[in-house]
Amino acid sequence: MNQRRQKLIPQIKYLSRLEKVWDWMAAEGIALVMLEDTEGRRDRNIRWLTGHPGDALLLLSADRKALLAAWDINLAKHYVSEPSILIASYNDFDRLPQKAVAAVTALLGIQAGSKIEIPSVTPYPVFLDFVGELTDHDILCRQRSAAVEIKKMRAVKDEEEIQILRKAAALTNELIDLLEKNVRKGKIKTEADAAILIEIEARKLGCEGTAFETLAAGPDRSYAIHAFPAWTNASFAGKGLSILDFGVRLGSYGTDVTLTFAREPNTGQEKIINMVEKAYKLGLSMARNGMPAKKLAAAIDSLFAKSRKKMPHSLGHGIGIDEHEYPIIRNRGDNEWVLEPDMILTLEPGLYDAAYGGCRLENDILITKDGPEVLTDARIIRL
Amino acid sequence: MNQRRQKLIPQIKYLSRLEKVWDWMAAEGIALVMLEDTEGRRDRNIRWLTGHPGDALLLLSADRKALLAAWDINLAKHYVSEPSILIASYNDFDRLPQKAVAAVTALLGIQAGSKIEIPSVTPYPVFLDFVGELTDHDILCRQRSAAVEIKKMRAVKDEEEIQILRKAAALTNELIDLLEKNVRKGKIKTEADAAILIEIEARKLGCEGTAFETLAAGPDRSYAIHAFPAWTNASFAGKGLSILDFGVRLGSYGTDVTLTFAREPNTGQEKIINMVEKAYKLGLSMARNGMPAKKLAAAIDSLFAKSRKKMPHSLGHGIGIDEHEYPIIRNRGDNEWVLEPDMILTLEPGLYDAAYGGCRLENDILITKDGPEVLTDARIIRL
Repeated sequence: MNQRRQKLIPQIKYLSRLEKVWDWMAAEGIALVMLEDTEGRRDRNIRWLTGHPGDALLLLSADRKALLAAWDINLAKHYVSEPSILIASYNDFDRLPQKAVAAVTALLGIQAGSKIEIPSVTPYPVFLDFVGELTDHDILCRQRSAAVEIKKMRAVKDEEEIQILRKAAALTNELIDLLEKNVRKGKIKTEADAAILIEIEARKLGCEGTAFETLAAGPDRSYAIHAFPAWTNASFAGKGLSILDFGVRLGSYGTDVTLTFAREPNTGQEKIINMVEKAYKLGLSMARNGMPAKKLAAAIDSLFAKSRKKMPHSLGHGIGIDEHEYPIIRNRGDNEWVLEPDMILTLEPGLYDAAYGGCRLENDILITKDGPEVLTDARIIRL
Repeated sequence: MNQRRQKLIPQIKYLSRLEKVWDWMAAEGIALVMLEDTEGRRDRNIRWLTGHPGDALLLLSADRKALLAAWDINLAKHYVSEPSILIASYNDFDRLPQKAVAAVTALLGIQAGSKIEIPSVTPYPVFLDFVGELTDHDILCRQRSAAVEIKKMRAVKDEEEIQILRKAAALTNELIDLLEKNVRKGKIKTEADAAILIEIEARKLGCEGTAFETLAAGPDRSYAIHAFPAWTNASFAGKGLSILDFGVRLGSYGTDVTLTFAREPNTGQEKIINMVEKAYKLGLSMARNGMPAKKLAAAIDSLFAKSRKKMPHSLGHGIGIDEHEYPIIRNRGDNEWVLEPDMILTLEPGLYDAAYGGCRLENDILITKDGPEVLTDARIIRL
């Protein structure tokens, strides 16, 4: 492992995370919880609880046992440091989750009638397979499932996570400064120049890589919320609005920022920039402990609505192992999230216009008792 | 759009693809089919049927109407060329699939009691939301759903797809040659050197980018099936076995190849290489029209088993818009796929050892009436 990286990453206390889940299971009277990370149904809870990168089932029992059934057993042995987690080969269960759950249920002697919880995202036909395989047990597949409860636990970051994300944010800021410098010097002329610089420099700084596929959209493509393709050889940071949305990943944790480069903006573009900056400032002023996320997002929607503009996406989201974590900062009826200390979230107001292009400003914010702490230094850069 | 790329990509006949689905719906007596592409539940059927990159619902009705409810309406207008596809904003339905389906059901006057099909991967709790929202209709959520039927249609490629994938394969081969040359010259010394070269050169060749995150694993990390992180600054192509798994994407279609670089292999490593090469040759000799995929995969498993080795993954899979498409080339009881002309699939035998490292050889194969045609030129490169 990279020397610099090793120094950056504190030891994670996996057992204390597992204990939280077992405590919750005891309170709910659940005998067995299955978590699944597979192609098409990613669940980073497994990485959060064990350190294993993915493609695995995790089975947690009421008597506080943890079994990781990993597709790649070599990889699991390399990444799982907590000795009480048992490692098995998922191939031994034909890579069928219902088979693995049935086998472990039998192995642990879990009593008939007990509650076995499977993920909320289990497809309905797969749910039927479970019910067919485990006829003597009570299969739970609920919207507010164990997997969702664990994701909720992850919304408030622990000490180690805050340390890692602070460091990842500092490295992100080094990249932001380098990107601005190279754009100003004319060294970054295409979307590819920007994206490749991030790929190379992030690793030089000791990161695992980027947190997600960099979105670099020059003036001709910035009208899209998420440009497709993500980046091309098209011109970047020329006349008009260019968007650069990226993050770095350090010890499994990713940042998420968006810069807008504005060169000689016309009146319509200036108006968009000013509104996005105003929305960002308003959002930041409201990002305090105790603030309902819905109220925060609604304030930005109202601000835009006064100018007959509409933001086509959420105002923000938690960050962490997943690209998008809880809390959701969205103005929708069912959003019950309230900001709390030690949440780390993005604020990312943006506006997009087929003729003028788009502008988004996104930073990562740590909520503290004393107010928001802006960890990253993304900005709208006027050229 | 890139000049070179435009020339490479033939015009796709979206309407004829939609007609196939409508024909299937008529035969099944289904009034409305909903397809969903969203974070956590990607469905590239929408791209295949409309050209829209993703984050959308597609609603297809028995009276041959198609409505695309896109999160990013600007992007949809840019990418959807078929004029009969109606485009709406997904935000108008609060980005809730059950709301969109209910609204369209009312709009089209779909009769009570009619069958409305939602994707197989719909989580059980979301299925209950649909049933609650559309109480007068028969909500189908089946393992063998419309979405799965469409994926099956995609297993046999149409003329345009074969043209595009042939071109993507030719570009992949240019990259393979360049990679070998640069490794031999000592210009590629780290995993990052290899991965960055692919990122840059793929776009220079006119591709949208890579088909998936390149996996570059030097001798210290090649023991893993899919290295984590995908690529680092670690040494590559030094003494031992190094794996490079990559593909390029052209007009939405991706290739998928794996090279192994072997430098001064020891006896144990030689044995692994030889077995993988032997397995590849056997696989290729069997990859013919009419061959059951399970039988093909079982032959390779048996070959390895004779030497007490076990391949921890499938032998191959279809390629196309998704990284992994039908047919599945896997030795499992429920695999009913039979090879047919115009399928394009990977053959990728591999063995992985915690001490020796791993070796995988993967090429993309077009099945024709006259036998397999190997489109890509991946190989085990002895240094």
